[in-house]
Amino acid sequence: MTTFEQLLDARRILDGVAHNTAVATSQTLNASVGAEVFLKCENLQRIGAFKFRGAWNSVSHLDPAIRARGVVTHSSGNHGQAIAKVGQLMNIPTTIVMPTTAPVTKRAAAEGYGATIVEHDPATQKREEVSASLVEEHGYQLIPPFNHEHVIAGQGSAAAELHDEIDDLDLLITPCGGGGLLSGSALATKNMRRKCKVIGIEPELGDDATRSFRTGTIQRVENPQTIADGTRTESVGDITFPMIRHYVDDMQTVTEQAIIDAVKFLFLRLKLVVEPSGALGVAALMSGVVSAPGKRIGVILSGGNIDSATMMRVLNEGRN
Amino acid sequence: MTTFEQLLDARRILDGVAHNTAVATSQTLNASVGAEVFLKCENLQRIGAFKFRGAWNSVSHLDPAIRARGVVTHSSGNHGQAIAKVGQLMNIPTTIVMPTTAPVTKRAAAEGYGATIVEHDPATQKREEVSASLVEEHGYQLIPPFNHEHVIAGQGSAAAELHDEIDDLDLLITPCGGGGLLSGSALATKNMRRKCKVIGIEPELGDDATRSFRTGTIQRVENPQTIADGTRTESVGDITFPMIRHYVDDMQTVTEQAIIDAVKFLFLRLKLVVEPSGALGVAALMSGVVSAPGKRIGVILSGGNIDSATMMRVLNEGRN
Repeated sequence: MTTFEQLLDARRILDGVAHNTAVATSQTLNASVGAEVFLKCENLQRIGAFKFRGAWNSVSHLDPAIRARGVVTHSSGNHGQAIAKVGQLMNIPTTIVMPTTAPVTKRAAAEGYGATIVEHDPATQKREEVSASLVEEHGYQLIPPFNHEHVIAGQGSAAAELHDEIDDLDLLITPCGGGGLLSGSALATKNMRRKCKVIGIEPELGDDATRSFRTGTIQRVENPQTIADGTRTESVGDITFPMIRHYVDDMQTVTEQAIIDAVKFLFLRLKLVVEPSGALGVAALMSGVVSAPGKRIGVILSGGNIDSATMMRVLNEGRN
Repeated sequence: MTTFEQLLDARRILDGVAHNTAVATSQTLNASVGAEVFLKCENLQRIGAFKFRGAWNSVSHLDPAIRARGVVTHSSGNHGQAIAKVGQLMNIPTTIVMPTTAPVTKRAAAEGYGATIVEHDPATQKREEVSASLVEEHGYQLIPPFNHEHVIAGQGSAAAELHDEIDDLDLLITPCGGGGLLSGSALATKNMRRKCKVIGIEPELGDDATRSFRTGTIQRVENPQTIADGTRTESVGDITFPMIRHYVDDMQTVTEQAIIDAVKFLFLRLKLVVEPSGALGVAALMSGVVSAPGKRIGVILSGGNIDSATMMRVLNEGRN
């Protein structure tokens, strides 16, 4: 498990590199949920998501000679963008394994940061195998998207900043995909504000971590078709899961409609661009899945990378 | 003309009431326009636009007995929302004259702040006549949307905050509708950073202020069908125009496409929700209408009140 010392170390490493993102508040939101809500705006983080933190921290910990050879990962989402951006900033080569089906915009964004894209056909090859062969062939270092102690330590720095800025939170809510953000946030919270509860939120359609949390063994879900694409991971990992079991108080799930409504609300009323995965916490509060009347609630808005087509769907289907 | 002393007074009155909004920066935007750009995020102001500043300041200056009778205005846009919100906060009655054609959402928002809506049929009645009759009948005080010295002083406080936070701007760019924001911003700038140029931006379709600026006499435009609905005013006023002539260095216009592209860019890349009128400055920079290579440029993002239908149009039509 990642230690709090590693998290404090990550904060030093990220100081002046990652943005200490704004904390937004809204009387409208507070009135709507009957509590005092503090939104940690990681949608305004570099590359538009908290993933920059873990990527920078983990690459920073590599031995310089290893780092110089380059880094590879197999995430076409925010972690891939983050690794590409870190490579650009550190001037080291990065390779992102992406399925042939990945949106052109994601390829273009990673290439814009100077990454090399290696395509794989998801029907015939596992992405893990492709990155393993690149590690083998070129000596690249693999940085996985969540199941890595320095990635987790980096992700936890967002919650640590929130606790520094906002005193005495009663509850912290974060999205959960592979559990890197959730476990890091819970680690920060239980070391900084022992009495603050931590709840992780998943889409109903991708409820593997919630089932894992309840059963005590890692459960899986296959390619869930949730709009919250950042949480489509198959399962939590063997590092994140023990941390979730140890530090997290509860897990809950939200419907697709609740996610869509939350993204639309954040857009129209708070003027915040938040991607579906990033809106899980607000979705839980606004749909009543999580309720804490009169309490001080921190919510991590984990990212803002929503594309035009998804936003149009949200505007069409969101209730308002 | 509004004086700098009135603007300083407005700052004191607004202190702790209006948000001192964030200043956003973006390496992507800087690279795109070849300059250092500082975005004053009035889209994150109360009611989602700078209009809160002028409304609060002007209502604050009313004699308490007059204020208690109530305030009326005839703006269905952000100024109307701002007056309604100020009325709610100060616990005084407000009346907003809106055309029968106003969107339901704008009526609902003003009513949500406790305002009374008075409808008028734009085909048969001038909105100014309706508010004049309400002034006559009920003793309400009329607060016009821009042509008012305390409104202008309030609007200028945003630029003053920007100069306080960001040293040595070479250029400040603001949208121009009736000229309240532009004249207030120019007043602040020429008193705080004498060497900083000020440029006002209008849509090509509603270029009355630009023509007025060039000809020296107030020109008009009738109900221009620009997407930048905050700048559809018929003309600048007899208070704002002399201030624009005295303090503003230049006026320029941008195409509808440039406005749409800017709103989409701010959404997708900067994660900022900005309404079309609010994006005029970024549109001018990104389309090359205003160019200041290597300079430090302040841009006021004046508001974020964009509705779903307009955002869908932007996502459909914006080039990216």
